[in-house]
Amino acid sequence: MTDSQDLREEARHQDQDELMQHLKEVQQVLSRHKLVESLVHRQDMPRHELVEGLVHKQHLVELQKKLDELHPADIAYILEALPLDERLLVWDLVKADRDGEILLEVSDAVRESLIETMAPAELVAAAEQLDADELADLAPDLPSEVIDDVFRSLDSEEREQLRAAMSYPEGSVGALMDFDLVSVREDVTLEVVLRYLRRFEELPDQTDQLFVVDRDEQLRGVLPLDVLLVNDPEIEVAALMQTDALSLQPEDDADHAAQAFERYDLVSAPVVDGQGRLVGRVTVNAVLDHIRDEAEADQLAQAGLKEEEDIFASVWDSVKNRWQWLAINLVTAFIASRVIGAFEGSIEKLVALAALMPIVAGIGGNSGNQTITMIVRAIALGQVGTDSERRLYRKEAAVAVVNGLIWGGLLGLIAWWLYDDFRLGAVMTAAMTLNLLVAAAVGVAIPMTLQRLGRDPAMGSSVMITAVTDSGGFFIFLGLATLFLL
Amino acid sequence: MTDSQDLREEARHQDQDELMQHLKEVQQVLSRHKLVESLVHRQDMPRHELVEGLVHKQHLVELQKKLDELHPADIAYILEALPLDERLLVWDLVKADRDGEILLEVSDAVRESLIETMAPAELVAAAEQLDADELADLAPDLPSEVIDDVFRSLDSEEREQLRAAMSYPEGSVGALMDFDLVSVREDVTLEVVLRYLRRFEELPDQTDQLFVVDRDEQLRGVLPLDVLLVNDPEIEVAALMQTDALSLQPEDDADHAAQAFERYDLVSAPVVDGQGRLVGRVTVNAVLDHIRDEAEADQLAQAGLKEEEDIFASVWDSVKNRWQWLAINLVTAFIASRVIGAFEGSIEKLVALAALMPIVAGIGGNSGNQTITMIVRAIALGQVGTDSERRLYRKEAAVAVVNGLIWGGLLGLIAWWLYDDFRLGAVMTAAMTLNLLVAAAVGVAIPMTLQRLGRDPAMGSSVMITAVTDSGGFFIFLGLATLFLL
Repeated sequence: MTDSQDLREEARHQDQDELMQHLKEVQQVLSRHKLVESLVHRQDMPRHELVEGLVHKQHLVELQKKLDELHPADIAYILEALPLDERLLVWDLVKADRDGEILLEVSDAVRESLIETMAPAELVAAAEQLDADELADLAPDLPSEVIDDVFRSLDSEEREQLRAAMSYPEGSVGALMDFDLVSVREDVTLEVVLRYLRRFEELPDQTDQLFVVDRDEQLRGVLPLDVLLVNDPEIEVAALMQTDALSLQPEDDADHAAQAFERYDLVSAPVVDGQGRLVGRVTVNAVLDHIRDEAEADQLAQAGLKEEEDIFASVWDSVKNRWQWLAINLVTAFIASRVIGAFEGSIEKLVALAALMPIVAGIGGNSGNQTITMIVRAIALGQVGTDSERRLYRKEAAVAVVNGLIWGGLLGLIAWWLYDDFRLGAVMTAAMTLNLLVAAAVGVAIPMTLQRLGRDPAMGSSVMITAVTDSGGFFIFLGLATLFLL
Repeated sequence: MTDSQDLREEARHQDQDELMQHLKEVQQVLSRHKLVESLVHRQDMPRHELVEGLVHKQHLVELQKKLDELHPADIAYILEALPLDERLLVWDLVKADRDGEILLEVSDAVRESLIETMAPAELVAAAEQLDADELADLAPDLPSEVIDDVFRSLDSEEREQLRAAMSYPEGSVGALMDFDLVSVREDVTLEVVLRYLRRFEELPDQTDQLFVVDRDEQLRGVLPLDVLLVNDPEIEVAALMQTDALSLQPEDDADHAAQAFERYDLVSAPVVDGQGRLVGRVTVNAVLDHIRDEAEADQLAQAGLKEEEDIFASVWDSVKNRWQWLAINLVTAFIASRVIGAFEGSIEKLVALAALMPIVAGIGGNSGNQTITMIVRAIALGQVGTDSERRLYRKEAAVAVVNGLIWGGLLGLIAWWLYDDFRLGAVMTAAMTLNLLVAAAVGVAIPMTLQRLGRDPAMGSSVMITAVTDSGGFFIFLGLATLFLL
């Protein structure tokens, strides 16, 4: 029976407005503090040093008192909202025994900025406050000598857990798993279980069920706390435990686990190894973090950012975070530019083409992105089988033709009116419709192909579709114009 | 003391692979069923009617048996993955007493397609199975006469709850709230609470704490189940209840509540009215659904889709879902086109401009989207105050200058080499740098302004930034070229 548990001091929960208020107060103290410093420095007189020291201290004591009252997650929030110099000042004031928890809560970028300033001994102390699964989350950001030191300080069970937790790849259930669980035997009565629980100081966070295992740690079922509470204490666990609840394996896809939590409104789920032995559990708060991270990663990738960015990062860090996709975009834009270059002769003869061509390309890109978003969502929900693929191509093609005729037709009329050239309008309509068809076909094909190759169907698909509809749109429009107008 | 609770039959939890397998089996039965139908119809002989009837029945019985074993969420999943005709066939086979729960689980688009086929009496029966908060979620999709009928069938407490639940706007805590909670008094011992709980058949889903209220329903604190379980039954509730836990108000922003659930790893939180009376609770599964919906809405809005789309929706429904943003995009593309039109004389003289201008516009758009994504995220996390705004402008401008010099410089060299014109290269570099500065300024200004106007800072910002960087890029590049090259 595992009885690992954290004994964390409870701090008051803040609602968003209160939290903002705390942030503002911290900022005020910091700016008063800075003002005093700058005043004293400007006058640069030795007799002020004493005063500075006193005021300085007073501000910092005030700040420290405030920080001590806050939940680690709230301190993390405040650290993220502060520029680097103020952030490090606040970080120094945080009690050392809370460092570990706070490092867990901040974003990767901010965590890096904090870890950089800490001595190895401080890092070891911070890491030692954490559970194995938390340590595994932090480990990639820690220097290897710190990890080694921490590792040596663990007992053999914890070492085994840490080794296991670090071995699971990101995106697997193993990476979400923790080891804080309470397990019981099936041949005891509820009364015995209740007495057993009273020996705990508290139960692990988000304990909504106990796990029923046999002597070989094989998972036999789960006993929800509410079942334990509403039933007669004389009944045996075996008679009440649920055997049909979801159990996960460490290798399972974390996304699938998250979907199961949503489908079945779970708070926790047991994780068993290949031999059916209970090795850990996944809780809904790990799932919530996972969902938030995934949604964020998608948004960042779509905009061409490598990772979340500390808004107070240095200019150079920001440039590094953003250059890759700008470079890719530059290459695709260059290719599109060369497509236009090939038709320079046509543009010279009919300069209206230069003004109209970005419309054809732009609408194609927008429409292709709509298709991709819809398909990516359907793939994520597992709704796209091989049967439906052909159907999807047909439908998207039909939507493209309708849109091409409506919007392309409208633009054709406008082009006709602007340049007083009926044939130019007709070419415009035809080019729009064709480019929308290209966008539809490629919009279905890209995520489906990525999916088949085992890649994330959303990854980079927006850049790819825009590349195709830009170059394709220019080629179709200028090509048709060259064929029919010149 | 409220003791409302659902007595739902528990179905086996499926992992993702099992669920896919079920879907495949359903699809196989459906296609066998269709094959028989089409064979019989083709031969069109009356003596086959009997056989058809038998085979038909056999398939449907098989299907029904399979469906009965599945969890409502899993049936919803299967319904979403089926084309309309098959979806309705399966829907007919689902036991009527599960209709309500399944309607809650399917997406809005699919729900519409199901409700359309149901008679008012069926809808009333389905709605009557639901709790007030669930009913409030379903209500907007139901015909008003159905709502009226259901309303008449409720007792006065439920009516009050339904009226309250329907009165809260989407995006408020009230809209996430449910009324399934267990409350206790502070002046009783844990023993009394334990005896009281044994009178329940089961506790409401996701009950991790009991709510402590006084005679006027004023919330006094919360009693987590683990506190109840680990402590001596002789102790009074008042001595153990937590008074510093988060409590929400129905008018609070649902996003803020969701962030609090993430920060503090909550499973449930009490909701109190302005007078401090307990009116309901929010559970983590409502929060999970909210976060998923929000992330999805963001992605859809970014791609220019009005709402999630049933992938088997008709072509016409799809066109309607997508037209608005295409139209906006058309207008912005048209404006950009007219900017180019104003410089047709310049392009006629130097046709290379036509080939190079999309690069300037495209890179600007990409870079602006990166800035916006970062700012929107920072705003969502509440990290952007007025102090940091100036700092952000400065930093983004610096990033723009660095990128402009690096990438603009590179492109300038390429343009120089391609067209053997040094001054063209210099104009290219200058235009890129200026357009990146525009992108940076507007990329910070758009979400900040939307935020100040009380709008969603992400809404439509991608379309706006692209409009600015397209028209701006064309104007800057062609304008500089006209001034310096011609």
